Amino acid sequence: MHQSTLQKLLTALQEGKVSVDAVIERLRSLPFEDLGFAAVDHHRAIRQGFPEVIFCEGKTPQQITGIARRLLHAHPTLLATRVTPEAARALKKLDRRAVYHESARVVAIQKRSQALHGDILIVSAGTSDIPVAEEARVTAEVMGSCVETIYDVGVAGIHRVFSRHERLLKAKVVIVVAGMDGALPSVIGGLVDCPVIAVPTSRGYGASFGGLAALLTMLNSCAAGIGVMNIDNGFGAACLAHRINMLGEKT
Amino acid sequence: MHQSTLQKLLTALQEGKVSVDAVIERLRSLPFEDLGFAAVDHHRAIRQGFPEVIFCEGKTPQQITGIARRLLHAHPTLLATRVTPEAARALKKLDRRAVYHESARVVAIQKRSQALHGDILIVSAGTSDIPVAEEARVTAEVMGSCVETIYDVGVAGIHRVFSRHERLLKAKVVIVVAGMDGALPSVIGGLVDCPVIAVPTSRGYGASFGGLAALLTMLNSCAAGIGVMNIDNGFGAACLAHRINMLGEKT
Amino acid sequence: MHQSTLQKLLTALQEGKVSVDAVIERLRSLPFEDLGFAAVDHHRAIRQGFPEVIFCEGKTPQQITGIARRLLHAHPTLLATRVTPEAARALKKLDRRAVYHESARVVAIQKRSQALHGDILIVSAGTSDIPVAEEARVTAEVMGSCVETIYDVGVAGIHRVFSRHERLLKAKVVIVVAGMDGALPSVIGGLVDCPVIAVPTSRGYGASFGGLAALLTMLNSCAAGIGVMNIDNGFGAACLAHRINMLGEKT
Amino acid sequence: MHQSTLQKLLTALQEGKVSVDAVIERLRSLPFEDLGFAAVDHHRAIRQGFPEVIFCEGKTPQQITGIARRLLHAHPTLLATRVTPEAARALKKLDRRAVYHESARVVAIQKRSQALHGDILIVSAGTSDIPVAEEARVTAEVMGSCVETIYDVGVAGIHRVFSRHERLLKAKVVIVVAGMDGALPSVIGGLVDCPVIAVPTSRGYGASFGGLAALLTMLNSCAAGIGVMNIDNGFGAACLAHRINMLGEKT
Amino acid sequence: MHQSTLQKLLTALQEGKVSVDAVIERLRSLPFEDLGFAAVDHHRAIRQGFPEVIFCEGKTPQQITGIARRLLHAHPTLLATRVTPEAARALKKLDRRAVYHESARVVAIQKRSQALHGDILIVSAGTSDIPVAEEARVTAEVMGSCVETIYDVGVAGIHRVFSRHERLLKAKVVIVVAGMDGALPSVIGGLVDCPVIAVPTSRGYGASFGGLAALLTMLNSCAAGIGVMNIDNGFGAACLAHRINMLGEKT
Amino acid sequence: MHQSTLQKLLTALQEGKVSVDAVIERLRSLPFEDLGFAAVDHHRAIRQGFPEVIFCEGKTPQQITGIARRLLHAHPTLLATRVTPEAARALKKLDRRAVYHESARVVAIQKRSQALHGDILIVSAGTSDIPVAEEARVTAEVMGSCVETIYDVGVAGIHRVFSRHERLLKAKVVIVVAGMDGALPSVIGGLVDCPVIAVPTSRGYGASFGGLAALLTMLNSCAAGIGVMNIDNGFGAACLAHRINMLGEKT
Amino acid sequence: MHQSTLQKLLTALQEGKVSVDAVIERLRSLPFEDLGFAAVDHHRAIRQGFPEVIFCEGKTPQQITGIARRLLHAHPTLLATRVTPEAARALKKLDRRAVYHESARVVAIQKRSQALHGDILIVSAGTSDIPVAEEARVTAEVMGSCVETIYDVGVAGIHRVFSRHERLLKAKVVIVVAGMDGALPSVIGGLVDCPVIAVPTSRGYGASFGGLAALLTMLNSCAAGIGVMNIDNGFGAACLAHRINMLGEKT
Amino acid sequence: MHQSTLQKLLTALQEGKVSVDAVIERLRSLPFEDLGFAAVDHHRAIRQGFPEVIFCEGKTPQQITGIARRLLHAHPTLLATRVTPEAARALKKLDRRAVYHESARVVAIQKRSQALHGDILIVSAGTSDIPVAEEARVTAEVMGSCVETIYDVGVAGIHRVFSRHERLLKAKVVIVVAGMDGALPSVIGGLVDCPVIAVPTSRGYGASFGGLAALLTMLNSCAAGIGVMNIDNGFGAACLAHRINMLGEKT
Repeated sequence: MHQSTLQKLLTALQEGKVSVDAVIERLRSLPFEDLGFAAVDHHRAIRQGFPEVIFCEGKTPQQITGIARRLLHAHPTLLATRVTPEAARALKKLDRRAVYHESARVVAIQKRSQALHGDILIVSAGTSDIPVAEEARVTAEVMGSCVETIYDVGVAGIHRVFSRHERLLKAKVVIVVAGMDGALPSVIGGLVDCPVIAVPTSRGYGASFGGLAALLTMLNSCAAGIGVMNIDNGFGAACLAHRINMLGEKT
Repeated sequence: MHQSTLQKLLTALQEGKVSVDAVIERLRSLPFEDLGFAAVDHHRAIRQGFPEVIFCEGKTPQQITGIARRLLHAHPTLLATRVTPEAARALKKLDRRAVYHESARVVAIQKRSQALHGDILIVSAGTSDIPVAEEARVTAEVMGSCVETIYDVGVAGIHRVFSRHERLLKAKVVIVVAGMDGALPSVIGGLVDCPVIAVPTSRGYGASFGGLAALLTMLNSCAAGIGVMNIDNGFGAACLAHRINMLGEKT
Repeated sequence: MHQSTLQKLLTALQEGKVSVDAVIERLRSLPFEDLGFAAVDHHRAIRQGFPEVIFCEGKTPQQITGIARRLLHAHPTLLATRVTPEAARALKKLDRRAVYHESARVVAIQKRSQALHGDILIVSAGTSDIPVAEEARVTAEVMGSCVETIYDVGVAGIHRVFSRHERLLKAKVVIVVAGMDGALPSVIGGLVDCPVIAVPTSRGYGASFGGLAALLTMLNSCAAGIGVMNIDNGFGAACLAHRINMLGEKT
Repeated sequence: MHQSTLQKLLTALQEGKVSVDAVIERLRSLPFEDLGFAAVDHHRAIRQGFPEVIFCEGKTPQQITGIARRLLHAHPTLLATRVTPEAARALKKLDRRAVYHESARVVAIQKRSQALHGDILIVSAGTSDIPVAEEARVTAEVMGSCVETIYDVGVAGIHRVFSRHERLLKAKVVIVVAGMDGALPSVIGGLVDCPVIAVPTSRGYGASFGGLAALLTMLNSCAAGIGVMNIDNGFGAACLAHRINMLGEKT
Repeated sequence: MHQSTLQKLLTALQEGKVSVDAVIERLRSLPFEDLGFAAVDHHRAIRQGFPEVIFCEGKTPQQITGIARRLLHAHPTLLATRVTPEAARALKKLDRRAVYHESARVVAIQKRSQALHGDILIVSAGTSDIPVAEEARVTAEVMGSCVETIYDVGVAGIHRVFSRHERLLKAKVVIVVAGMDGALPSVIGGLVDCPVIAVPTSRGYGASFGGLAALLTMLNSCAAGIGVMNIDNGFGAACLAHRINMLGEKT
Repeated sequence: MHQSTLQKLLTALQEGKVSVDAVIERLRSLPFEDLGFAAVDHHRAIRQGFPEVIFCEGKTPQQITGIARRLLHAHPTLLATRVTPEAARALKKLDRRAVYHESARVVAIQKRSQALHGDILIVSAGTSDIPVAEEARVTAEVMGSCVETIYDVGVAGIHRVFSRHERLLKAKVVIVVAGMDGALPSVIGGLVDCPVIAVPTSRGYGASFGGLAALLTMLNSCAAGIGVMNIDNGFGAACLAHRINMLGEKT
Repeated sequence: MHQSTLQKLLTALQEGKVSVDAVIERLRSLPFEDLGFAAVDHHRAIRQGFPEVIFCEGKTPQQITGIARRLLHAHPTLLATRVTPEAARALKKLDRRAVYHESARVVAIQKRSQALHGDILIVSAGTSDIPVAEEARVTAEVMGSCVETIYDVGVAGIHRVFSRHERLLKAKVVIVVAGMDGALPSVIGGLVDCPVIAVPTSRGYGASFGGLAALLTMLNSCAAGIGVMNIDNGFGAACLAHRINMLGEKT
Repeated sequence: MHQSTLQKLLTALQEGKVSVDAVIERLRSLPFEDLGFAAVDHHRAIRQGFPEVIFCEGKTPQQITGIARRLLHAHPTLLATRVTPEAARALKKLDRRAVYHESARVVAIQKRSQALHGDILIVSAGTSDIPVAEEARVTAEVMGSCVETIYDVGVAGIHRVFSRHERLLKAKVVIVVAGMDGALPSVIGGLVDCPVIAVPTSRGYGASFGGLAALLTMLNSCAAGIGVMNIDNGFGAACLAHRINMLGEKT
């Protein structure tokens, strides 16, 4: 119920056109979100530049383009994750501005020149973790964060981490992506002072149990203050990093 | 190696008092941290007001007071977590300023009047989750963050969450503590725009498997961008929240 | 052994036509079900309109149509779940009345005009949970329950749930279908007074472990009185919901 | 906001004593639950006879009696589960009507003569499952359901189940409580037509893994339509059974 | 070292042709199995009619026929399990007597007329468990046991079990094959006095976790004295059943 | 209903003392087991010498002696497992013949001179597995089997197994009890021709996960035809071994 | 920073060409590895003959040959593991010396005549474990170790192990590869005095859970002093074995 | 059979005092270990200085001293692990030379002046891992290895590791002990060239699951060639390290 509707209703009561009981009845049946939640959603779109991200896993290209069309009607920006090449082609047909980030499996439609803010640093342990890291990178950039990446600096060659020590210290928030033993976030978490987000990946074999080993390592990190995401959830890491990155940037 | 030591060494070289080879030898055998890491640690102490937190689980009161004495020699502030009443008494004997937060099982020694910054909101689902929430609250406050708490607003009575909707929207970072089904972070993550940190607790029975159920729920949250901590890790949540909370506050 | 058979046997004994030992022997070797269980099965068919549902997973189209033919010989109604398109075509060839509910992967053969009773409400958290929800919907309708559905009202946009609050309150029994964090049943269980049945789905990735996360969430729900089904078991949820829904309806 | 308060406010508007804007402002700042949820809660209390059950695990006797005092102020009935003998004594001191069901670990305070409705049958597999079954029995009775119990009729002596076949067929809803192999619900689910609720217990050793074996058995039951509860959750089973049992009983 | 070799050596010593030290040296370096273990193997072949069974999973048709050729050189009987249709064709080419039991995925080569002994009864819960049951049946028959089968008598329709009560009581050993809830062995174990062997199958979905649910059920069976096999291990069940079945048969 | 009672009833009918309807009524209301199952149970008692074993875990001494008194009324033999010293004292007070096997935690009451049959060999890997092995030994002996034991012959010192090779070959059935790696049954299963029953024990630490490691080892044994019991289930192993051991012994 | 660079810098200071502050600044920003870690890496290449092994799983042939080209530029030797036939062809095109070890899925490029040192013995339990064993063999040989293999000597036919007893005793280090029950390392660990490395394989089915059963067996081995590798990690076993094998060989 | 016994027997044959058949009979019934295995054991005792280590968990002080007395009769050295203070007192009473290493929970009896060989370095991540590290240290020293320790150099303060870089490079074999995230072995494994043995500890809470997290981390280490031990198995690590350490040391 928009405020104008409420105003009309109460004015009608004031003017004696409706009874008190009728107004009570009307208020009682009022969907909650009409009062407040829709406003929240509106606020979100204004602030972030996109209202909803399409998670494409298990959806047909037809379903995806259907949702995309509806979203593009309301917003100039679109983000779709876990996009197959086939679905990417369908989205490109829908809107020529669509860019398919193949390794990240992300399709993005953006305004021409978006200002990027802050400083998110994404670090990956191995080359096979790069797709997850790239999902995070593209997501954060489309949302408006400035992102840099350092790839393939795993713990087994720890000097590769240390050669980037100064860069690490400058970041506002760091996303660390690692599979197998998932040990990299512990090392980086002990080096930096900024918030660290850890993303386990499903890369590995045997007792990695599809990323469970890396997940448990990160949850038990002896470096305090690391927030852990679901396995392979580069998108979620970017959402959290972007929220953190925007603190103190807005004005 | 403090900078002054290095300066003396190089000045001695400049003045011809030592040879180039002697300086190289000295630099080569130099522990790495003397160059860079100690500076990092020093920086950390200045910024956070305390260098190291004592995790007391599995340590005797004697060991704890031993470590505390050493730390208090260098720093005016001390934080110890998972403190038994017995160890708390020992710490109080060591330093009369020590305060035992019984529910949080935390002992803190602080300077008289510490300025608190930012706005961390800690929300707990049930009354039995309060000890973990309190560990987070005391930790964040001792670190210098301004903290407010909303306790016992579980998902089963979702209206309790909604009555605090406006307060939730104002927070700079939210810590959500929940056991059993661990569903509260998903609901709050969908309501707010700020970073959300989820802490599963071991509260529950049967198929909660010591907090595993809540942990998995949070990792799979359908609300994007929630960083998850280890089970019962209120301390870690506070560390991460404090790091986030301080962004844009420092000047 | 029907009662008449028993009566004849005992009368024969009374009349001296058979010996005591022969009667004892006959009673001893009597299959149990001849007394009561067959009657139970007959009763079941009369009451529910179909005697057995074909679970097609791991059966060839030939096996499925073989079983279907035998069942249709005795009953006018047929239900087959987890049906592949190929098996669906075979069933349609067998009986032209067969309808293939593709998303639900269910084939149903029904009498022309079946009266529907009660009020089952099926709620799904995400669009990818719809196939499981549809399996429940078709099953319950074929059994004779009146079903309505509310899809895609996940916890991350909790206002979508609240806008249906009144509809939820009117339902006689609610089935809640959710994957990923599986948090929706906890929220709905706290809103309604009627029986709630929760169905975890295998939708998700990483630490969802094929639906385990959602399953554990539901088992640990902080909303009391939620019955949980196996992962993806829309059929079972419908069976239980239908049994509940028919209470007080029969006459 | 009680309906009377709302009526007064709107009447004041009708009578010109307050402005439309003032009423809008008042409605806007209104906590959500004051509009709708409190009514829901009130409705719940009227219908069920008690508003909230105290889960005592991990609470001190002082905390429990504190909550109980507050609840008894508003309601004539009280239910507390997982009560230690010590907490039971404290509750008895608080209110002489309190009855401690020792095996069920439940304390109940009830009105003198409560009418019981419907027919819930609770079946347990072994004698060691009785405490969980008793928690269900006491809970359902305090809520107002008529309950009967059949204990110690496990699957290994299946004839014990069959000798109660007629009684099973008459029940409106059956709760089956079983530990170890958890096979009893499958057998009973195949015998009866009414809703069946299965409660795994933690009774067993070795590969029962604290009730996990029984839980998995029940979730995978080949008898369709069985709702499963958390391990040892007799209370939850009673809540669901009571909701089902009351269908068609209310008038 | 065959006995004759040893005899020659010792005779040579007796006759002064070799020294004591040389004999000690010879005995010391003697491979252990030459004394006793080869005899054990020989004994096994005589008793069972075949020395080794080919487990074909993960072997190429070439490897399988290679092993088969070597085995057939020494023995008139051959058993191969988990055989693909392609490998079965290769074995048929190798030896025209080869019979492919398709459902059981077993290839057997046998002597024309083998006498069968004892009485093994194989019971399966569902139709989808039949392949595992058939693997057991063919294996036991090829080994020389007399086998009968009762298929599709699951616990959900328990009367189907009871109608075979007399047959069950006559068996010398019973193999029970069941997937999903795996409850059938508990029921049968309570009815019969003979040894019961339980085989969980991987049939099921969701929380059956590939047969883990059925496996745990069987290990926790409340009917005492049931030996459990690995998931889908029909072959192993037949080996154990055959060993039991042959007790008291040998003369 | 004992056979004699049934005979009297039918004779009364034959003699015209009761009507056919009265007999039908009597038969109808008869608990099922009185017709058939009691006979089974009676048969069991005759064959095994005891009708039911008391599993004492989680029962008070009062409950245990209560059940024991009832059982001793009907049978001269009694077996109780997992008996605490306290419960053992209570049982000894009840019947002076009671013997407490402390390591096995078993109490047995037996007739003076029981003939023992067959040849069960119990082998344990380590000294800490002996209590489980002893539970099996006492159980099997009380049931009437002749038992011998070989303890502490683990795989790490495999020669200890081989020195008993001849004894192993003579056994009619072998029970192998092992914790930690649970490897002993695989070795023994490859040496003997008789049925082998494997019992994993919970002895071990760390990744033994309470016996899970040993359990999985035994289920995956590369020696075919080993029946596996639940962790620490010496009693169940004895039941199965005794059933096997009695084959060919009866008469 | 190579030593020469450092020397120039310090000489410049000595000669008054740069200031003390400039040198401090230079030293402070110096990447850590320039001081020490690069030297470590150089040392590694000299000692082992190859600097980095390509783990090919999840890499395209293009990526693999890209990395290989870079590595071959610096080193005469190359090792790539988990190589598909397609990638192997690409590597052969890149360098004609490339040899594809098909069963081991390894590609190796080596100098013509490499001296092999020490004595690594690789033992596998089953024929299906051979690919993992071969990965170990090829890896160790390319690294410069002398390797011998004994395949298919599983625990179920333990005499096959004993016939190689003398060979086992001579080895400097033994790698034992086993799937299914994973019992072989326990037996061999009890026979030999040299270091034993155990590699579980994913061979098996059902409760082998992809090698978990074998892994747990090996971790719980009752033979002391066995180092365990990840499931199927033949490469890692060879690395450790080679490091051990080279002790006392270098001169 | 000691060699002297064998010699007497063969001499008797040579001298015509016994027949060839009698010798064959004697040799045939000879326990295997008398020929070969006892020699192995003898060899082991000579090399290691002690034949068997008492694992005291689950043994009474009486049992422990009983075994110790027997062992001390044959050997001058004794090692007992997991010793409670009570058992330690009993062992000290038995032999005054017994030393109780309290933190390591080890009792050792040694010859006065034992030469120590080689260079084992034990590194622990946290102070709470020290008991496991100490178990390894005492064990290795009693066996005759020269051991040094570096404690509390966890990954979160990685500079603590690097300051010991040179010491790490000098070690012949490194044991790394770590709980929580278990990340330290990956870092150290990337720094050194010698064999690395990783021991996960059960230190931690929540999702460390009793050491499972650290165990999985180590098994999945991205540093190649790390041998992993069971959780808390400091003793086993020492056995393996000692075997490695002695290579090239003997003479």
